[in-house]
Amino acid sequence: MAKRTVYCGKVTEELVGEEIVLKGWVQKRRDLGDLIFVDLRDREGIVQIVFNPHFSKEALEIAESIRNEYVIEVKGAVVKRSAGMENDKLQTGRVEIEAHEVTVLNEAKTTPFYIEDGVSVSDEKRMEYRYLDLRRPEMTKNLILRHQLTKTVRNFLDNQNFIDIETPYLTKSTPEGARDYLVPSRVHPGHFYALPQSPQLFKQLLMGAGFDRYYQIVRCFRDEDLRGDRQPEFSQIDIETSFLEPEEIQTFTEEMLAKVVKETKGIDVTLPFPRMSYDDAMNRYGSDKPDIRFGLELIALDDVVKDSGFKVFSGAVANGGMVKALNVKGAADNYSRKDIDALGEFVGIYGAKGLAWLKVDEEGLKGPIAKFFKEDAEALMERTQAEPGDLLLFVADKSSVVYDALGALRVKLGKELNLIDQSQFAFLWIVDWPLVEYDENEDRYTAVHHPFTMPEADTLQYLEDQPDKVRAIAYDIVLNGYELGGGSIRIHKRDIQEKMFKTLGFTKEQAEEQFGFLLDALEYGFPPHGGIALGLDRFAMLLAGEENIREVIAFPKNGRAVDPMAKAPSIVEVKQLDELSIQTAQIESDEEATEE
Amino acid sequence: MAKRTVYCGKVTEELVGEEIVLKGWVQKRRDLGDLIFVDLRDREGIVQIVFNPHFSKEALEIAESIRNEYVIEVKGAVVKRSAGMENDKLQTGRVEIEAHEVTVLNEAKTTPFYIEDGVSVSDEKRMEYRYLDLRRPEMTKNLILRHQLTKTVRNFLDNQNFIDIETPYLTKSTPEGARDYLVPSRVHPGHFYALPQSPQLFKQLLMGAGFDRYYQIVRCFRDEDLRGDRQPEFSQIDIETSFLEPEEIQTFTEEMLAKVVKETKGIDVTLPFPRMSYDDAMNRYGSDKPDIRFGLELIALDDVVKDSGFKVFSGAVANGGMVKALNVKGAADNYSRKDIDALGEFVGIYGAKGLAWLKVDEEGLKGPIAKFFKEDAEALMERTQAEPGDLLLFVADKSSVVYDALGALRVKLGKELNLIDQSQFAFLWIVDWPLVEYDENEDRYTAVHHPFTMPEADTLQYLEDQPDKVRAIAYDIVLNGYELGGGSIRIHKRDIQEKMFKTLGFTKEQAEEQFGFLLDALEYGFPPHGGIALGLDRFAMLLAGEENIREVIAFPKNGRAVDPMAKAPSIVEVKQLDELSIQTAQIESDEEATEE
Repeated sequence: MAKRTVYCGKVTEELVGEEIVLKGWVQKRRDLGDLIFVDLRDREGIVQIVFNPHFSKEALEIAESIRNEYVIEVKGAVVKRSAGMENDKLQTGRVEIEAHEVTVLNEAKTTPFYIEDGVSVSDEKRMEYRYLDLRRPEMTKNLILRHQLTKTVRNFLDNQNFIDIETPYLTKSTPEGARDYLVPSRVHPGHFYALPQSPQLFKQLLMGAGFDRYYQIVRCFRDEDLRGDRQPEFSQIDIETSFLEPEEIQTFTEEMLAKVVKETKGIDVTLPFPRMSYDDAMNRYGSDKPDIRFGLELIALDDVVKDSGFKVFSGAVANGGMVKALNVKGAADNYSRKDIDALGEFVGIYGAKGLAWLKVDEEGLKGPIAKFFKEDAEALMERTQAEPGDLLLFVADKSSVVYDALGALRVKLGKELNLIDQSQFAFLWIVDWPLVEYDENEDRYTAVHHPFTMPEADTLQYLEDQPDKVRAIAYDIVLNGYELGGGSIRIHKRDIQEKMFKTLGFTKEQAEEQFGFLLDALEYGFPPHGGIALGLDRFAMLLAGEENIREVIAFPKNGRAVDPMAKAPSIVEVKQLDELSIQTAQIESDEEATEE
Repeated sequence: MAKRTVYCGKVTEELVGEEIVLKGWVQKRRDLGDLIFVDLRDREGIVQIVFNPHFSKEALEIAESIRNEYVIEVKGAVVKRSAGMENDKLQTGRVEIEAHEVTVLNEAKTTPFYIEDGVSVSDEKRMEYRYLDLRRPEMTKNLILRHQLTKTVRNFLDNQNFIDIETPYLTKSTPEGARDYLVPSRVHPGHFYALPQSPQLFKQLLMGAGFDRYYQIVRCFRDEDLRGDRQPEFSQIDIETSFLEPEEIQTFTEEMLAKVVKETKGIDVTLPFPRMSYDDAMNRYGSDKPDIRFGLELIALDDVVKDSGFKVFSGAVANGGMVKALNVKGAADNYSRKDIDALGEFVGIYGAKGLAWLKVDEEGLKGPIAKFFKEDAEALMERTQAEPGDLLLFVADKSSVVYDALGALRVKLGKELNLIDQSQFAFLWIVDWPLVEYDENEDRYTAVHHPFTMPEADTLQYLEDQPDKVRAIAYDIVLNGYELGGGSIRIHKRDIQEKMFKTLGFTKEQAEEQFGFLLDALEYGFPPHGGIALGLDRFAMLLAGEENIREVIAFPKNGRAVDPMAKAPSIVEVKQLDELSIQTAQIESDEEATEE
C-alpha cells in the first residue's frame, strides 16, 4: 500500500498541482463510458475523483468494476474544477482528482441502507449494522464532536491541576439510589460485585487521600427502564475538589462548559451563567431544570382565586394545593376545544385531573368556566397580563401535580409554537435545594441529591426533627431544559453524616454495614470538599442537536437494553454459571431476548 | 474559608516576603513551649510552619491543640530559614512560614499506620485504609505519575488525529479467550452481558465504520486467578488504525512510549526500538518477552551433546527435545551444591526434571556429570565460552520446558547477581510470530494472539492444512522483561476469517453464532486495519519502579479479588437476585469472603 497523503475531506485548492494518495469508500460512481466520476469518502469528507483514459487506462478499467462502499486507494493529481462545475456544498467542491492509479483494497456487498444523512431506516436496523450507520456523515460528525468535547474538558482540567484517577468498576452494591447491575463472584460463591452508579464515594475518599483536584471521564451503570436520554451505561465527567467554595466550583465548571461550546460550536456563551433558586425554578417554570430559552412562565393565582365561585380552584387552595396558569399569548385562535382537550389528556399523564381554560377577546374572558370569574375577572386578567387573543390554561391541584403538569405543558407548547431559539445554549445554575424529600412509597425521607450532601449550616439544626426545612449546599447545571449535571459540597464530618443517615431511616447498623468505611474515613482528617458530575452523553447530544443520546454513542443499547449487533445479552454456557455458583430461575430462548 | 494561594510543596524562595494561604495535613508537630513547628503536607509536598507568640498568640494556642493528620488552614508570611537551619531534603527546605492565623478544618484520630514512605504495614491493612495509604508521598506520586502518563498518551494521539471513542462495557460473552465476568440481565431472564476482556471487536468495527484512527483508555476485565501484575480489572491504551503498515504502527507507538518516558522520567530512550523475531527471542532468552538489560543468554548445545555419553542430554535430543545451557560467568564459587539444588527446585516449577551443572576451573569441567564429557569437553567449553570460575547450568527436555525453565532461571539469576541496570528502560519489539499453537489440553489449535490476527501473505496457504507453519503479522512490545502490549494487523476479509475460525476448531454454526456480526461486517467494505493494545497499569508500574500493579491503582483488589475497604464483593438482598431471576447455589458468610 502507498501511504495516504491527505484525507478526502481535506483536499482543497491549496493542493492543486500536487500528486496525492487517498484511501476511502466509494460514496457514488457515475459511469459516462470513457469518463467515470467517483465520490470518495473518508471520515473527514468527500472528494471527486475523475477516471479518464487520458490519465490512465488501467485505472479507468478498474474503476468500471468498483461499486458503492468499495474501499479503494487512489493516486492522482489535484486539479481545479472547470468553471461552472464547482460544488459549493462540498468543502472540496472547487477541486477534483485526476486518477493515475487505483487499487481496490476491499469489495462491498450492497448495504442494507444508504450511507448518507437523513436516511430512512429503523433505529433497530441502524443499530444492527452500526458499523455502516456510523459511516453516515452525520454520525461520524457526532462522534468526532464527542471527542472534541472530551478533549476540551481534559485539557481544561489538566491545565487546572486536576488529576485523572481511575476508580473501580467492580465494587459494592448499595441499595440507596437506582437499581444496581450485579456481577457474581467466582472466588466467593454467593457474593456479588456491583457496577458503579457513580464513583461518588471513591472520589470523596480521594479527597480524603489528599488529591485535592480529581477528575475522571467514567462509565456509570443503572439498571433502570430506559428513555430517550437514558442508557444502561452512560458516561460522566466526574469532578471533585477540596477546600473550594461552591461558587468556585461553579466558576471553573462554567468556564469549562463555555470552552466546550466555543470549541465544538464556535459559539460564545455569556459568563457567569444565571443562578436561580430551586423554589424560583419550580414556581416560575414548574421544573427544577427549566428551559429558559423562552418565557411562558407559570403564573401563581392562589390569592386571586382562593374565594372564587369555581370550586375546583378555591377548593384546591383550601386543601393546601395551588392554582397556576399559563398565558399562551395570541394562541386563542390556534387551539380548538378539541386541541385543548388533547392538552388536557397530556397533563393527565402528570396526574392533573383536568386542564381548565379561558380565552380572551375584546370583551374579556370567554369559555365554559368564564361565568365563575365575573368578580375576579379583572384581577385574573391583570395577574396573567391577559390581552385579547390570549389563551389561559389552568391547573389546580396539589403543588407537585401543578408543577409537573404545567411544567411539561409549558415545554410542549414552547415546541409546538416555535417559541424556542434552537441556536441558543441556555445554561442555568439551580441553587438552594432542599436536602431531603418525603417519599410516600417508601414512607421515609430520601435525599434529593444523595446522602452525602452537606446541609446549609444555618439549617443544620433541623436535620433530625424537621428535615423538610434543611437546605442543601447543592447546585445543578441545566442546559436547554436538560439536567446536565449536579454537584454539591459533601459532608466531611462523621457526626453530620451519621445524622443524615438517621434522617434517611438507616439504623446505626445499616449505616455501618453499608457505609462504615466512609464513616471511618471521615474521622481521619477529611478535608472540606465538593464537586460535580456532568452527563457527557447528554451534553454531546445537546451540542450535536440530537434528541436521543444513542446518536452520540458508538454502540448503544436499544429500549430493551439489547445490543442488536453483538446480540447482547445472551445465553451463556452452563459451565460458566456453574463456575459462578449461580443458577437461572428461568431460561428463555436467545431469539426472544435479542429480538426487538 | 480563605482561598489557598499555593500548594505546600510549591513554597520556594521566590515567595519570600509574601503573605500566603495554605491548606493541608499536619505531618508532624514539634512543641517547644512558646515555639511550635508544624510540617504541613499536601499532594505536592511538605513545608514548615512556625508558630510563635510574636507572630500570633491565638495561632500558637490553636497550634497547641492540633495533632497529626489534622486538616488545617494557615495564613502566614514566607521567610527564609536562618543559616544552618535549611533542610536540603525538602523542595521547600530553604523557607518556612510564620503563622499569622490558623484554622482547624477537621480533626483526626490516630491513624493505623504512619503517613510516610516505606511504612511497615501489611498490604491488606494498606488496602483497608486506602485513603490513608494514598496520602503517603510515594503513593501520591505514583498516581500523579500515572496521570502524567495518560495525559501524555492522550495529547500525543489527539495531535495525531486519533479519535477517542468509548465502547460498551455491557457486551456479549465469547468463550474464546479468558474467563468472562458476567452480568445478569433483569429485562431478559436467563441472559447475561459480559464485561469486555478488551474492546477488540468494537475497535475493528470502528475501522469498518471509517474512523481510521481510534484510541481509548479503557477498562478490561478478566476473571482469572491473580498474580502481581494482574488484577480483575485493568486499563488498556487501546489503539486501532486503518491503512497502515505494521512498521507505521510500530513507529508511532514507539514515539509515544518514548515521549511518556521523557515526560515522566526525564529519560531519553533511543529510537527506533530494537526488533527481534519470536524465534530468536525464544532461542536466546527462552522467553517471548526477554529482559534485554542483561546478557546471560541461552546457549544451544544439541549438536555438541547429541552423541554424549550422558543419556539425559543425548536422549533429550534423540526424542526431539533440546539441551540448552546458561553460562553464569564467574559464579562457580558463589553457588554451593545446596544453592544449585535450590535452583533445581526452581526450574522444577517450570516442568524441568532436573538442572544439570558443571563448574569450570583451570583444569577444565568439574562436577558429578563431568565424567560424561571427556570427549566433548572442549567443544562444550568453546560453545559456552567457558572460562575458569564459570558455572554452567543445563536443562535437557522438550523445547517448551527448556525455554520456560531456563528463561525463568535466567531472570532469577540476573536479579540475584545484580546483572540488571535498574535505571534503564529497555524496549523491544518481538515480531514474526506463529499464528497458532497447539493446545494439548483443549486438543485443538488456539490463536497465539487472537483469532482476528492476519496471517503473513506468503504463509496463508498453510492455514487449513499446516497451521503450525503460518506466521502472524503481529508485534509485541516488551519493556524490561514485561509484555507491555501486543498488536497485529487484523483480518479484513471474510474468507480468511472463516478459515481462521475453522483452523481453531469452530464449526460454521459456532463461528456464525459468536462472531456472525463481524463476518457480516467484513463483507461491507472493511478497510485493511491493525492496531495495538498497551497495558497501562503495567507501564505505570514500570515507570514508577514498582513490582506490583496495585501500587499504581487507586483502589485495587487483593489476591482474592476482594476490595478490603469497600468490602466488595458482598452478599446482596434476595430481592435483587429475584429481580435478576437468578439464585445462588451456595451462600457463605460475608466475613469469609472479605477476610484475607
